Amino acid sequence: MVKASGGTTTVGELLLSRLYDLGVRHVFGLPGDYNMDFLDQIEAFDGVEWVGSCNELNAGFSADGYARLAGVGAILTTFGPGELSAVNALAGAMAESVPIVSIVGGPTEEIMRQHTSMHHSLADGDFDHWVRVAREVTVAQTSLTPQNALGEVDRVLTECWSQQRPVYVRMPGDVAHAEIARPGRRFTRPEPVVAAGQLDAFATAARRLLDGVERPAMLVGNLPIRFHLGAAVTAMAAERNWPVAAQSLGRGLLDESDLHYVGVYNGGDSVDEVRAVVEGADALVCLGTTFFDWDGLFTADITVDRVISLHRDAAVVAGTRFAPVALPAALRCLHEIAPNRTAQWSRAPLLAADPPALDPSNNEPIRQARLWPAIQSMLREGDIFVPETGTPSFGAATMRLPADVTVVWPPIWGSIGYATPAAFGAGVAAPDRRTVLVTGDGSLQLTVQEISRMLATNQRPVIIVVNNGGYTVERAVDGRHQPYNDIDNWRYTELPAVFAREQGFTAHVARTEGELATILAGIDGRPAQLTLVEVETDPLDLPTGMPQWGRETSAADYHAQLASTPVLPLGGLP
Amino acid sequence: MVKASGGTTTVGELLLSRLYDLGVRHVFGLPGDYNMDFLDQIEAFDGVEWVGSCNELNAGFSADGYARLAGVGAILTTFGPGELSAVNALAGAMAESVPIVSIVGGPTEEIMRQHTSMHHSLADGDFDHWVRVAREVTVAQTSLTPQNALGEVDRVLTECWSQQRPVYVRMPGDVAHAEIARPGRRFTRPEPVVAAGQLDAFATAARRLLDGVERPAMLVGNLPIRFHLGAAVTAMAAERNWPVAAQSLGRGLLDESDLHYVGVYNGGDSVDEVRAVVEGADALVCLGTTFFDWDGLFTADITVDRVISLHRDAAVVAGTRFAPVALPAALRCLHEIAPNRTAQWSRAPLLAADPPALDPSNNEPIRQARLWPAIQSMLREGDIFVPETGTPSFGAATMRLPADVTVVWPPIWGSIGYATPAAFGAGVAAPDRRTVLVTGDGSLQLTVQEISRMLATNQRPVIIVVNNGGYTVERAVDGRHQPYNDIDNWRYTELPAVFAREQGFTAHVARTEGELATILAGIDGRPAQLTLVEVETDPLDLPTGMPQWGRETSAADYHAQLASTPVLPLGGLP
Repeated sequence: MVKASGGTTTVGELLLSRLYDLGVRHVFGLPGDYNMDFLDQIEAFDGVEWVGSCNELNAGFSADGYARLAGVGAILTTFGPGELSAVNALAGAMAESVPIVSIVGGPTEEIMRQHTSMHHSLADGDFDHWVRVAREVTVAQTSLTPQNALGEVDRVLTECWSQQRPVYVRMPGDVAHAEIARPGRRFTRPEPVVAAGQLDAFATAARRLLDGVERPAMLVGNLPIRFHLGAAVTAMAAERNWPVAAQSLGRGLLDESDLHYVGVYNGGDSVDEVRAVVEGADALVCLGTTFFDWDGLFTADITVDRVISLHRDAAVVAGTRFAPVALPAALRCLHEIAPNRTAQWSRAPLLAADPPALDPSNNEPIRQARLWPAIQSMLREGDIFVPETGTPSFGAATMRLPADVTVVWPPIWGSIGYATPAAFGAGVAAPDRRTVLVTGDGSLQLTVQEISRMLATNQRPVIIVVNNGGYTVERAVDGRHQPYNDIDNWRYTELPAVFAREQGFTAHVARTEGELATILAGIDGRPAQLTLVEVETDPLDLPTGMPQWGRETSAADYHAQLASTPVLPLGGLP
Repeated sequence: MVKASGGTTTVGELLLSRLYDLGVRHVFGLPGDYNMDFLDQIEAFDGVEWVGSCNELNAGFSADGYARLAGVGAILTTFGPGELSAVNALAGAMAESVPIVSIVGGPTEEIMRQHTSMHHSLADGDFDHWVRVAREVTVAQTSLTPQNALGEVDRVLTECWSQQRPVYVRMPGDVAHAEIARPGRRFTRPEPVVAAGQLDAFATAARRLLDGVERPAMLVGNLPIRFHLGAAVTAMAAERNWPVAAQSLGRGLLDESDLHYVGVYNGGDSVDEVRAVVEGADALVCLGTTFFDWDGLFTADITVDRVISLHRDAAVVAGTRFAPVALPAALRCLHEIAPNRTAQWSRAPLLAADPPALDPSNNEPIRQARLWPAIQSMLREGDIFVPETGTPSFGAATMRLPADVTVVWPPIWGSIGYATPAAFGAGVAAPDRRTVLVTGDGSLQLTVQEISRMLATNQRPVIIVVNNGGYTVERAVDGRHQPYNDIDNWRYTELPAVFAREQGFTAHVARTEGELATILAGIDGRPAQLTLVEVETDPLDLPTGMPQWGRETSAADYHAQLASTPVLPLGGLP
């Protein structure tokens, strides 16, 4: 595919120039003794910057947050201990469709060929253990050699982009600086694949399904975000007058104040208005959705023969699959053939534009029911909003977001500890935007170190730490009063001073609604320095939706009781 | 194998009672929504205690440290994100031969059978991704059902103990409390397997090799520690007058003040006296050794036809293998047939009993060359000594340890960040002993959270943080002045105050030799509360041995240059 023309380069420089062409501008990770020659090449390369992380899991989460803003992320770790610490983050990117290039500095080709017993290995001469692990969490893997580099780098980066999922590149220590012919062309992102005949057949089938419908609607998942289709969906909704609901995964695609946006759909847990729009639709267009237990798989009352479902590379009409038909092309086609909707609909009442303000004179402890509307009120157009899995993600589910807010969260994977390093990564990708990180005390403790990197790189996020003494999201499922859901009570407001000897910061504790009102009133726009607000809430004060979710999750996880007979196929929509 | 007799139990209680029989008294980990029914069973079970961890990697390292003291460790994580975060720790236990039972709370059997799209999964209906990952880092795996539990629990625990390596147990959420018949017998640790005929044949071959030798010697690795053979080795050395060298892996097995102990052997990097004993031996008995790049694989001048090598379950004489012959039995046999040694030997000069004391009036910065002898002087008989990989492990290599010091470190796996959570785990296992943790600033940042757990559980370790502004061990290999080896400069002495609102602690900073002298003089015996000492050293001040090691590692990692033509087979001794 790649023609060599003129001069030489090294394998490391080739990888860097291809990463640059793909859109990578920063690489997260840690030095390790197998990756430093490539690290030297990063330092020397113009256009790609090294961003050190405190540990490899955090590097992976940071790259995930970065990729959601910049389009693609990258990490560099070292063979064995380094790369294995990041596996959870790569699995999360796999589940959530986030393109990350995971580069691992490995032992030399000769060492591996001779099955030598090395440090950072199991000392069994098998150097493919971690490639086999990578196969479970990435869509393409390669181990570079001077001979295969030209083809293999482009192959895995193509898969990374077209599938919008992580890939794995092992760079043996001696291969990084091996000389190879310089490729003649730059790397270009692969175009989505569309077979014209299949697209025509899809259009015919879709036209038939849409013929005469009166209550069509759209439901958006995360893939339209990855494929940057916010404007296209907004335009179709406006021109055809269709209502649009979002899965949790799809938050941030649309301006939630747009009258066509109706609210969050998550099956039987949805508010009635949203349920009526989605389940009452006589044609439902699902855009890159994923149905799983927490967003309605067991409770969605949707029948497949009313559904047009657009996937990454296939379009499905009432169960009939047309492929390859990439999502953007299928959406353009649908926009053209979609009928105008005249039937009215109602929007979710929780989408109040102006939630009730906090009362500065209230000396009672803060209730979750008051906290989340207050956080909604402080969000501004263009913010990067990072609500951690748990109390904050439930709180976020009740909010209406301003326009152009990017929501960084992993609803499927749900790894607690994601939010803090992801917020750091998002801040690296978009230094001109404000980041609002909302985390719980339990989640923060998993990955707290990355606050240090925020300070060192002069990021100025607003960090809200909901301190409820432990894992309240787990208390909602089981062990309401069990000590295993309690954690150590840190002095959260003193963390920044420990992590940075020089950089300034602001920190507050809010114990009452009045205190919180005063603190939030002081945060207008982007703060001049990192601002941390600890909010104390009762361990058993649950946000809206969490009690019911907890009962359902407990039933599903421990009692083999699905909340109701599932209507959707258990693997999700076809 | 197990007969049911009388009454019923649950799968969760069965696992707990078998873990108890195996020797597990504490389980580390985090609650997650798939594991809380089993967590409830742990809380209710008499004799096994739950110890919460700040994150799963730390839980894994804590269980590793615990297992090195208690004989076996256990962790509980949740399916997907939880278990994957611990993979690096399990791989480390695999490399270092540490028995850990990794228990994962999984989705219900029905959910998995139906290939349902669930949270914490890739939403692809494949629930075996993480079992396949576990296959790379554990020696046995199982997914429990009410039908298989009686047999499978015993099978994997047997493998865990007999191989002294980690195993993987998936406990579906609904299986934990499923009722099954109560087994009639308790679980007993499997006896080492010895085929009498093979043992006889080994004895004959060993007698032939030992016939007439004058300079026999022993070299110990980590397996004699796992099999509790310290007394047996000491007795044989004393009665037969044999010198004994230790691999890094084997530190702590012997009283290093014993005149038969000669020092650390790591091939060409060893001091002359130790090299003379090991390489000059006309018969070398290797006890559970592992040869890899960092302990002499490329440089050891040992020929296989002079070696008797005792492995886990095989004994090898000059390349001829006898199996199954478990290590303890082979050692007893060798003790009987070994000739007395009359030839003299020299011990390593670095084994000075009384290193030069620090000078309290010295206002110069502390040099590494002065730091490690000072730490040696503060170690006491019976301490648990946890030197982190990097500067501290190089420092430890130059020390003579008092008797009955347990050394907790992973020389093969070398995952930085191991030491802090491992020290916490060791402290849980042996609350009556003093723990001395020596870590670098870079390593500490990876897993710093577990200091919080030390404080909350009233542990009283001495923690020495060598602050040299980053990854000096990597500076020795490459990137001596590269910014990627620099890290954020935390206020380390203020960490305990952030992590604990109530517990007391002591913290000091030493910038000069005089300050360090004063601080260490104040630490006599076991402190009354957690004591943290930050020691500032120059980023490019390397401990003894590190410069040469750095050059060799750089050559091996990036230039395919083995330090010399390897004499040992590249996979290690047969």
